[in-house]
Amino acid sequence: MLIVALFVVSNLSAQEKIAKWEIFELSLKGSVAGNPFVNTQVIAEFKHGSKSVKPEGFYDGDGIYKIRFMPDEEGIWTYTTSSNQPELDKKKGNFICVAAKKDIYGPVSVRNVYHFGYADGKPFYPFGTTIYEWSFQDRNRKDQTIATLKASPFNKVRMLAVPPYKSTYLEGPNKMSVFPFEGSSKSNFDFSRFNPAYFKMLEQDISQLAAIGIQADLILFRPYDKGRWGFDTMDDATNIRYLKYMVARFGAYHNIWWSLCNENSFIKNLADEDWDRYFQVVQKADPYSHLRSIHNADRVYDYNKPWVTHVSLQYYNVVKSPWGTSLLRDVYKKPIVNDEINYEGTSEKRWGQLSGEEMVFRFWNAYIGGGYATHGETLPAWIGSGGVLKGTSPARIAFLKQIVEAGPQEGLEPVDHFYETNIAGKYGSYYLIYFGKERPKEWQFKLPKSALTDGMHFKAEVIDTWNMSITQVDKVFETKKLDGYSFLDSKGGKVKLPGKPYMALRIMLVDDSLTPKVKKSKGNELNEDMP
Amino acid sequence: MLIVALFVVSNLSAQEKIAKWEIFELSLKGSVAGNPFVNTQVIAEFKHGSKSVKPEGFYDGDGIYKIRFMPDEEGIWTYTTSSNQPELDKKKGNFICVAAKKDIYGPVSVRNVYHFGYADGKPFYPFGTTIYEWSFQDRNRKDQTIATLKASPFNKVRMLAVPPYKSTYLEGPNKMSVFPFEGSSKSNFDFSRFNPAYFKMLEQDISQLAAIGIQADLILFRPYDKGRWGFDTMDDATNIRYLKYMVARFGAYHNIWWSLCNENSFIKNLADEDWDRYFQVVQKADPYSHLRSIHNADRVYDYNKPWVTHVSLQYYNVVKSPWGTSLLRDVYKKPIVNDEINYEGTSEKRWGQLSGEEMVFRFWNAYIGGGYATHGETLPAWIGSGGVLKGTSPARIAFLKQIVEAGPQEGLEPVDHFYETNIAGKYGSYYLIYFGKERPKEWQFKLPKSALTDGMHFKAEVIDTWNMSITQVDKVFETKKLDGYSFLDSKGGKVKLPGKPYMALRIMLVDDSLTPKVKKSKGNELNEDMP
Repeated sequence: MLIVALFVVSNLSAQEKIAKWEIFELSLKGSVAGNPFVNTQVIAEFKHGSKSVKPEGFYDGDGIYKIRFMPDEEGIWTYTTSSNQPELDKKKGNFICVAAKKDIYGPVSVRNVYHFGYADGKPFYPFGTTIYEWSFQDRNRKDQTIATLKASPFNKVRMLAVPPYKSTYLEGPNKMSVFPFEGSSKSNFDFSRFNPAYFKMLEQDISQLAAIGIQADLILFRPYDKGRWGFDTMDDATNIRYLKYMVARFGAYHNIWWSLCNENSFIKNLADEDWDRYFQVVQKADPYSHLRSIHNADRVYDYNKPWVTHVSLQYYNVVKSPWGTSLLRDVYKKPIVNDEINYEGTSEKRWGQLSGEEMVFRFWNAYIGGGYATHGETLPAWIGSGGVLKGTSPARIAFLKQIVEAGPQEGLEPVDHFYETNIAGKYGSYYLIYFGKERPKEWQFKLPKSALTDGMHFKAEVIDTWNMSITQVDKVFETKKLDGYSFLDSKGGKVKLPGKPYMALRIMLVDDSLTPKVKKSKGNELNEDMP
Repeated sequence: MLIVALFVVSNLSAQEKIAKWEIFELSLKGSVAGNPFVNTQVIAEFKHGSKSVKPEGFYDGDGIYKIRFMPDEEGIWTYTTSSNQPELDKKKGNFICVAAKKDIYGPVSVRNVYHFGYADGKPFYPFGTTIYEWSFQDRNRKDQTIATLKASPFNKVRMLAVPPYKSTYLEGPNKMSVFPFEGSSKSNFDFSRFNPAYFKMLEQDISQLAAIGIQADLILFRPYDKGRWGFDTMDDATNIRYLKYMVARFGAYHNIWWSLCNENSFIKNLADEDWDRYFQVVQKADPYSHLRSIHNADRVYDYNKPWVTHVSLQYYNVVKSPWGTSLLRDVYKKPIVNDEINYEGTSEKRWGQLSGEEMVFRFWNAYIGGGYATHGETLPAWIGSGGVLKGTSPARIAFLKQIVEAGPQEGLEPVDHFYETNIAGKYGSYYLIYFGKERPKEWQFKLPKSALTDGMHFKAEVIDTWNMSITQVDKVFETKKLDGYSFLDSKGGKVKLPGKPYMALRIMLVDDSLTPKVKKSKGNELNEDMP
């Protein structure tokens, strides 16, 4: 037996130090007899105080088995392995988990029902983009993609773990040489043997994303093959083995989100019941409970199911108005991520010909509705291979992101979502009002009543969401009750607006002496008082 | 033992005749010892050929137990009772089920996933209205309500099975004298004893509705009591006994729909898990599988659950655009009935101040979105007590109903619901295009490609949905493929429109020689061809 990691198990003084939420990797030499991918099971129990975490290991080729672990508490962690292979069984050791590195906040999970946060408490507001096939590009292109992302507002990418079948991956400069399975074509793929080189490539990409603070929304299955390679027509046992292998390899990366499938209904041989099972395979195998969702085509999976952590929807209409996202919050009671809202570009395809204005409009609607959205552009061809961004929307999305980050830490909530659907914020202290394609020339100061009392003071700013300007209104507004629903300014104050589309207002409490009495909305005055 | 029904069990020549889908009622005299509502179980098995149906009976007071049965096949039905009371046990008999009466089509169930149909095959397109408390009014008012309904477009009413607590029911001319339970106030209600007189009153109302072809969407529980009578704070065993009693009494009425609750989340002591159970109590007890849903307030019940047959939603925004309903179809894969979309009227309450135009606009959006809607008006006070309709929307809803009934029998389906969301109909033969608040001056003939080929001929009609006119366009259009999505008229033909809101178009195939190749839409060209 050989421990290949650079430490001596029994020597506490030279103990390995792993920063919180980074990866401790235990490498063990074992037998290669038979098919190690199928026949060898290895798992380790990591302990710290009363905590016990049991990640499964995986075979990494060349006789090496690996177990990866992401510690989430500082201090000494001990481990013991178990395996059906004697060489891998009952190995013990320990390491010290030290403070997290700068700008590492741990994995993201659901917070406040509809929102997200990092493990360390910092909120995470998804601003996604789409680079399905960036992992299958050459080194220069990948470096360019990373540089572009680093300079962009985006903090989550949707990416495929398995390439689509296409001619450029079969011949020419983009020809792929490594595949998820041993072999190079349908005629010789051995679906019982993974290709570690392929997954090492993916791991490098995930690590690079982690290094620049980007969540990898990793899409495990996809159609776009129709049996030509056979990656979307594998049998059930192979699919499950693949899922467990993915969790064993990638689960310890703090920036992983699991997307079970892209456009799942286009994989004709898998029904929703199969996805139910596959979700549960991932849920059971993943000791960190990374976020789990699935991305629909024409058949929408039931996101109410308990193993789904958030909604990862393709439904363009939802973001044509803030109430679409807000409706889905009520339907699913989970975070709504509008993960495909069409793409900015000039494609002949309807799904790839949004103007920058329309993309930004849809983004604002998603966030005002209390949810999130994901960008993409077809200006050839970021959504496919990454590279550089050419569209006009990313700068405006960055502007929106600044506003969201400076807003309520809990995330934007619709404040009167059955009636005044264009207002989000936090009762009594913060209101973001979005006018979309309307062209108002003025706005009468008027806020929904929840948490308001007479005499509270608010300032207003006019936001031009397209030209990215924020202009303070030279006036302080004082609340005065109008009726059972609203408060006006006591002097009937108004805000002048330029009569252009894509304008917004930010209304914030200025008078700290009047802490708002925040109370929960009772269904926004639904007819409790029914006649 | 006494059979009180007007027939002799053993005399086949004088055998009772019951029309299909009417009620055969077996009345049996039994013991009144103890509490018959709680202690006596009686059930009958009705058999016809290989069919067996087992409705539960109920105690109707005065020593009479009843078992009601709705036969759905012509011919001889035999029955045998079972009971824990010897006097009610092992009673046998039979009757002949004869042809259905004129205009009786049997109970309504789900058809074509998103639509409804009667048992005899006739489609049922819900056009609902709301008369929550009509059952608790005096005879004159009830007669007036029935007369109004008969002359209206409405074919479904939402009505409460239990009154809300209010002062007019406690004193004055509207004072209620019968209640669901024995007693007259919280201090003396005996929740273990139903009051048969109360339910006989309700039955008469349900029968009257049946006689004029109206479905009774009977709301079993409601808030609006807050414990003052205690009808919304009964214990679990009482709730379940009440549900079973309702099913035993009302299940044999062909026009019953079960609405488990109105605004269920306002009953604070019942969680969604309780509603799960209550749904299943009804499902199990009801041998006819009448439609089952629940009507939300602020917390939306998960309509994906298997015991829910259709969505009975209160969510006003959904009907602000056709895509709202169409989105919910995809989410729930069940019929969407927008059962509360605010009410026409001039109430001070936001939920009761729609203009007639807005009500009609919301109706059209619901049907173009592939669903249904329910009307109500606060013009005092149809939604409460019935009486007469004073609003401007019912006539226009009648006009829409005529159009829907003359349309595709399968029900209106959105034909390009991810992109061109204002078109419903049937691929290749029928298109209803609704412009809502837009004011187009012309419409270029352009239809989504599904089921179209070059050279098909269509006629067009201009519909003024508010002024209720249909004007034939003096032109025949011939399809010619434009691109991967649409067909135009081969001569670039257009339809002139008046630049007013609330206009629609009806486009129908005129050339029978070209039967359209109807094919299933593949997700409306979602990006199967992803780059």
